[in-house]
Amino acid sequence: MLKQNILIFGHKNPDTDSICSSILKERLNKKKGIQESKAVRLGELNKETRYVLENLGIEIPEMIEKVEEAQKVILVDHNEFNQSVQGIEKSNILEVIDHHRIDDFRTEKPIYFTTKPYGCTATILYEEFKKCEVEIGKEEAMLMASCIISDTLLLKSPTTTEYDIKTLKELEKIANINIEEYGLKMLKAGTDLNDFSEEQLINIDSKNVGKGEIKYIIAQVNTVSIPDVLKRQENIEKAINNEIQKQGLSLFVLAITDILNCNSEIIALGSRVDVIEKGFGVKLENNRTFLEGVVSRKKQLLPQIDKYI
Amino acid sequence: MLKQNILIFGHKNPDTDSICSSILKERLNKKKGIQESKAVRLGELNKETRYVLENLGIEIPEMIEKVEEAQKVILVDHNEFNQSVQGIEKSNILEVIDHHRIDDFRTEKPIYFTTKPYGCTATILYEEFKKCEVEIGKEEAMLMASCIISDTLLLKSPTTTEYDIKTLKELEKIANINIEEYGLKMLKAGTDLNDFSEEQLINIDSKNVGKGEIKYIIAQVNTVSIPDVLKRQENIEKAINNEIQKQGLSLFVLAITDILNCNSEIIALGSRVDVIEKGFGVKLENNRTFLEGVVSRKKQLLPQIDKYI
Repeated sequence: MLKQNILIFGHKNPDTDSICSSILKERLNKKKGIQESKAVRLGELNKETRYVLENLGIEIPEMIEKVEEAQKVILVDHNEFNQSVQGIEKSNILEVIDHHRIDDFRTEKPIYFTTKPYGCTATILYEEFKKCEVEIGKEEAMLMASCIISDTLLLKSPTTTEYDIKTLKELEKIANINIEEYGLKMLKAGTDLNDFSEEQLINIDSKNVGKGEIKYIIAQVNTVSIPDVLKRQENIEKAINNEIQKQGLSLFVLAITDILNCNSEIIALGSRVDVIEKGFGVKLENNRTFLEGVVSRKKQLLPQIDKYI
Repeated sequence: MLKQNILIFGHKNPDTDSICSSILKERLNKKKGIQESKAVRLGELNKETRYVLENLGIEIPEMIEKVEEAQKVILVDHNEFNQSVQGIEKSNILEVIDHHRIDDFRTEKPIYFTTKPYGCTATILYEEFKKCEVEIGKEEAMLMASCIISDTLLLKSPTTTEYDIKTLKELEKIANINIEEYGLKMLKAGTDLNDFSEEQLINIDSKNVGKGEIKYIIAQVNTVSIPDVLKRQENIEKAINNEIQKQGLSLFVLAITDILNCNSEIIALGSRVDVIEKGFGVKLENNRTFLEGVVSRKKQLLPQIDKYI
């Protein structure tokens, strides 16, 4: 890969917003005349994202493991270095577009950096396309809609903002499809966990978080049946305990999220499970607890855990 | 001050961009219907900024020392917590608009955060006014122009971007004045150092920077005559050494910047003056060195110092 290329990527363990926003940013750049930028990815595609790209006939971005010193990069859908590519500290970050909290990020020079508290990165990109007066084609509309559907669970997550709702309505018109129908198909495509080992399952969408010396992971899987996933609890716990030992973690939280009813069952292991009990006023039983109405890592899990850890 | 108010402020030791961008952001909010936000300041006005506000008949924003827990705030012209108000860590940061590098900044929640690598914050605010389709009146144009003139030394600093140049041209039309003439008057108003003690002089525009355990300060004064300032070198060094001891600094750099010829004389003291010698390939003599063409702390001093410290 040419060093003069600008590499655009989302976070490790990429989800639909990370992959599709990278592709969208590459397209926005091209439409603005910046030819040398290229969407790449930092990990395997999940089944939901695979469904989105296959459905649109869009090529899967190339995978990269690390970046060289001074490599020009654009980050979408993340800013924390511990969620980014190996070598990020010495890369040349040109721009960040994200909808997460800011942490573990720094640059030597001023750069373009935009975060907004929206439901997904693609909603910010929609505004960028509009601001640059760049046409949003049917394919782009489908990419953006897929990000919104994925990150907001079809506008049902508490992370949903008025901007996501308004944008999705606009996109539905451009794409000229039934969003509800497409969205459910897409979300369900992401919940088939059968050919994942437990090691893979806990890594499908896991985020490393650090606070001072304390490291922990919050992972999430979507499902249409929590009991189906819990059948594998014993082996899931083995996989989690392995990860805790390997990475020296204080806590590993796996949220098994019912995307139809919008609740989560939590499996928590590690020396600091007290944080879950304090943060949510619950008592873990068999290392588990049910959290009614909790679907968002960013808005519901992370702040409570961060507060008590 | 009411807690429900949103407080808008720039960095400690405020300069013209910090003060005027706070006022501009309050005005933008009001024009967008957000009534409860209020520009304040974190320190004494310098003479340049005083000239700007007096010339326009604009009231000086109230000074604050600290913010209460959960106080809603908007930061302009800075993001690093060590350059911000006391209590910032526990405040509720709603938004940041800035043109500096990002460092020592974190939030628990996603927020509105915009940095662009422009010459000053007001150029970003100009774009925000345009985007929101809010009228830029003569007074607003003068405030914006003053920020650009101050931070770019009338477009002569290497921090100047095409956006600042374009914006200043537009503002000149709106304000209907001779920018060159006004700008020189304004800059000169800021260079009168006579009634400052040496303790005050080194604090007129000083920025604390931290890297891990190492703390250092880069201060800057503008002048039309470097030799005039150097007459006070002995007492300036005493004041700097006091500051080093009091704050446990590894390095104190004072840049005495000739705004007419765009050069700086550096006075450097502390255990890590080697950084200046390595960073600029010079040898300090009598604790001083002349840096041809160096006028920008952000673009020329900070990156070189940061690299070698």
